[in-house]
Amino acid sequence: MTLAGWVARRRDHGGVVFIDLRDASGSAQVVFREEDHAHDLRSEYCVKVTGEVRLRPSGNENADLPTGEIEVVASEVEVLSESAPLPFPIEGGAGVSEEARLKYRYLDIRRQQIANALRVRSQATYLANEVMRERGFVYVETPNLTRSTPEGARDFLVPVRLQPGNWYALPQSPQLFKQLLMVSGLERYYQLARCFRDEDLRADRQPEFTQIDIEMSFVDQDDVIELGEALVGRIWRETVGYELPAPLPRMTYAEAMARYGSDKPDLRFGIELTELTDYFAGTSFRVFQAPYVGAVVMPGGASQTRKELDAWQEWAKSRGARGLAYVLVQEDGTLGGPVAKNLSETELSGLAAKTGAQPGDAVFFAAGARSASRELLGAARLEIGRRCDLIDESQWSFLWVVDAPMFEEDGEGGWTAVHHPFTSPKPEWADNFQDHPGEALAYAYDMVCNGMEIGGGSIRIHRAEMQQRVFDVLGISKEEAESKFGFLLEAFKYGPPPHGGIAYGWDRICMLLAGGESIRDVIAFPKTASGYDPLTGAPTPISVDQRKEAGVDAKPKAEAQAQAPAES
Amino acid sequence: MTLAGWVARRRDHGGVVFIDLRDASGSAQVVFREEDHAHDLRSEYCVKVTGEVRLRPSGNENADLPTGEIEVVASEVEVLSESAPLPFPIEGGAGVSEEARLKYRYLDIRRQQIANALRVRSQATYLANEVMRERGFVYVETPNLTRSTPEGARDFLVPVRLQPGNWYALPQSPQLFKQLLMVSGLERYYQLARCFRDEDLRADRQPEFTQIDIEMSFVDQDDVIELGEALVGRIWRETVGYELPAPLPRMTYAEAMARYGSDKPDLRFGIELTELTDYFAGTSFRVFQAPYVGAVVMPGGASQTRKELDAWQEWAKSRGARGLAYVLVQEDGTLGGPVAKNLSETELSGLAAKTGAQPGDAVFFAAGARSASRELLGAARLEIGRRCDLIDESQWSFLWVVDAPMFEEDGEGGWTAVHHPFTSPKPEWADNFQDHPGEALAYAYDMVCNGMEIGGGSIRIHRAEMQQRVFDVLGISKEEAESKFGFLLEAFKYGPPPHGGIAYGWDRICMLLAGGESIRDVIAFPKTASGYDPLTGAPTPISVDQRKEAGVDAKPKAEAQAQAPAES
Repeated sequence: MTLAGWVARRRDHGGVVFIDLRDASGSAQVVFREEDHAHDLRSEYCVKVTGEVRLRPSGNENADLPTGEIEVVASEVEVLSESAPLPFPIEGGAGVSEEARLKYRYLDIRRQQIANALRVRSQATYLANEVMRERGFVYVETPNLTRSTPEGARDFLVPVRLQPGNWYALPQSPQLFKQLLMVSGLERYYQLARCFRDEDLRADRQPEFTQIDIEMSFVDQDDVIELGEALVGRIWRETVGYELPAPLPRMTYAEAMARYGSDKPDLRFGIELTELTDYFAGTSFRVFQAPYVGAVVMPGGASQTRKELDAWQEWAKSRGARGLAYVLVQEDGTLGGPVAKNLSETELSGLAAKTGAQPGDAVFFAAGARSASRELLGAARLEIGRRCDLIDESQWSFLWVVDAPMFEEDGEGGWTAVHHPFTSPKPEWADNFQDHPGEALAYAYDMVCNGMEIGGGSIRIHRAEMQQRVFDVLGISKEEAESKFGFLLEAFKYGPPPHGGIAYGWDRICMLLAGGESIRDVIAFPKTASGYDPLTGAPTPISVDQRKEAGVDAKPKAEAQAQAPAES
Repeated sequence: MTLAGWVARRRDHGGVVFIDLRDASGSAQVVFREEDHAHDLRSEYCVKVTGEVRLRPSGNENADLPTGEIEVVASEVEVLSESAPLPFPIEGGAGVSEEARLKYRYLDIRRQQIANALRVRSQATYLANEVMRERGFVYVETPNLTRSTPEGARDFLVPVRLQPGNWYALPQSPQLFKQLLMVSGLERYYQLARCFRDEDLRADRQPEFTQIDIEMSFVDQDDVIELGEALVGRIWRETVGYELPAPLPRMTYAEAMARYGSDKPDLRFGIELTELTDYFAGTSFRVFQAPYVGAVVMPGGASQTRKELDAWQEWAKSRGARGLAYVLVQEDGTLGGPVAKNLSETELSGLAAKTGAQPGDAVFFAAGARSASRELLGAARLEIGRRCDLIDESQWSFLWVVDAPMFEEDGEGGWTAVHHPFTSPKPEWADNFQDHPGEALAYAYDMVCNGMEIGGGSIRIHRAEMQQRVFDVLGISKEEAESKFGFLLEAFKYGPPPHGGIAYGWDRICMLLAGGESIRDVIAFPKTASGYDPLTGAPTPISVDQRKEAGVDAKPKAEAQAQAPAES
């Protein structure tokens, strides 16, 4: 047989040379009975070997490898290409800096873990295509050179040489186009869509990312959810062998915030928040005289050292809180810690029972504005889960979070859209959301896995007068709406169907499937958080000529684009 | 049953109203027995109808429709949304300007022909995924924000706010990345890849387009060709029901140029070029004293009017030729036309037999440089095919054109690469292509359909010393190579495998499948040839703030990118 691949490991044993030859399908042991033939073979040389397959001598089997029972006795070997000394070892080399890994990404991908991650991503992509095809979705490619639209992040811009002074924008998502496709009557749209967002430095963000983008006409929330469960269910079943519960549990946004202090709760462990606002309604402790008081219990937390308890204060401060009040439940049931002495006998005596704390536990408190306090407790809950090792990493926790608010206060007396301004209210809020913007619920749904939002979408508004009421709440003037997404509003004049959809964060889903720690693990050629690519050196300065030719500094001609003809 | 869709046609017949209701699956007749219920229904209103299905009364069937034997008698109707008066009719409206069609593309797509074109594209995309999945290709997404690389067209550029003064480039193709993936050992790569080229105005070009991008390791030309035939074969079989011949015919570039004057010959009709260089070797006619003389016959062309014959001269001049010499073969076999009197008796007497011209035909000549003359005759051949209606539009003509030259003269005494500088020579030219750059053949192959190149690729160079010899022929210095694609050359130091691949022009393939006349027919939201999008109005001027924020005018910091850390 003939094998081609890379020299992974080499062992010399008294004239006989053993080579582990690695190819895309795995690794095989090649035996050279005459040392001469293997003389030239060094790490990562690309070689072609011809030889005979035989069972390995008894006792030499390697049960860890699929090919561990056989070996190939080489009769011929051809060096297809040599390798310079490696910047880092491919096999077994841990602790290589990420900068080096990204600079030599093509060597990094030779490592089994990274190659597998890319293969899992590919498998998941094929599965997604299969599901969407079976269900009659039309795969449509939407433009990447388009018009700047408002979606919460900055657009990347592209100067247009043929229309000097004018710029394309790269799409933050195909949102407007997919809604236009519904107006066009295609009814079921799907795309593996590249999205671009010029955001500030954030860990594990990429300036370009991929989403599975879906939109459907004549549907309700349940239809989109059913499809999503079929899609994600098939992918998890066929890549990692996990069978999703059917249907997935649904939790309202309100419940998720109340019980877990998060709109994407990680249900792989059970600790929940306890609201104590009523419990402390008559307290004389100033700190707890607040619109919201809540607590979360850390099992065994009473035995933390002073240093550990201080670290929690630092942790809370790094999140913008003033600190994290706590009481420690001693083994005899009495309560210790600095807060305890500020509480009344009655308050102290019922607290363990109210919060469910057991002797030996710590109880952390947050008091203040409802939403900020819950978020702090939700984050503390996750941190407790990590520190106490409560999270079963082998488990999967999926759920839908539904009924998010339509609007949130913008801090300046106005309202902003929690999703986007095309999100419909729930049917029961259709007529009066504008009168109660703080309470109105959106017809929106997020799929959450292991505490991460992996997909999100909504039923959209398709009625002009309803859209106008949303703009009114958001304080978007007719002129502003016209200039920002006038073409969508124009389209909605011509018999738009009721429609809704969802987008799945493909990088994040693939990261979960591959067991990676970062989306960079499932992106073939990722950039650093500052958008730098150590492999190609992008981005780079451009030359004066490039700048001139691209029309970067041209003034736009008035009306130029309106006069451009549609050539045939 | 309940139907939802759009009001396509309305007919009122004495109190009974008939509506053609259109949805994604087709059209159905809805009967309203009481006029009132249909009172509000106008063209392109989006409606939901509940009613009973029944057979149409005898004589009222419509054999043209799949639903032509039935109708739905409406009991309830709900207007989901209204439509403003349409800018052009959806049903049966021909002759609408392309500008209007693109501006209201969502209405244009409601037309059956355009919707079908997008559906065929979707179907073909799913089929491509299926074939590549079955064959074990890894679907890998390569970056769209990357480094400027040299590929024959200008790059679109993107300023980088987080690294002011530095710019990304949008990829003209994933060429370098797919070769890096081969170095990484993935062995089989596939992607539906968006490509960007900032080219000058040309009919039927788009600034962004899609290709099916493929690369394989440890393969030879035959492997890539076999895969290509399987891929294209499956797509044609399952979308248009055409069975490709297996294997497809192959023709060398030299033969294609000699016989058809084209490297992408349209074989749906049979006319061929005749070389007459030897025939006229001793001619006294100055025009034919040239390195190459050739001819192509126009059947029945002798009966063309003076005006028609003059039009050929204009046609030739518009292509940069001085004119198109011709003789007319009269019904009695004598030769007429202005050239005839310059030819000797011997030359005249054998000409019809030599070129295969029959009484009544015209013979067009080109004389001069071999390649320009052949191209002129090749273009004349196509024009003859069109004018004489020789092309059977229902036919498919597929072939591979192989063995293209590696290099062509650049007109300044040097050489340029016909494909790209990473294309390998054919094995027989491996050692000496540099000594005969004008004759050396590339290990390259193009798939041609109906006179269009629909795919092209090559076996790549994977040996550093061979790559260096190519650069030497091309006059690319080490410094230039380093600055342009240094990262690829660096990668090739680490055991690169032999590899090759191909890219299929997806827009063009889908246009052929859909029977469209332009790639715009199979692009959901195309731009005009000047890159303008009448729907969104892109591109647009940007604001002073956007310009400042994007860092368009920032000077790059020296070494800034080299110092950027790889964040975790």
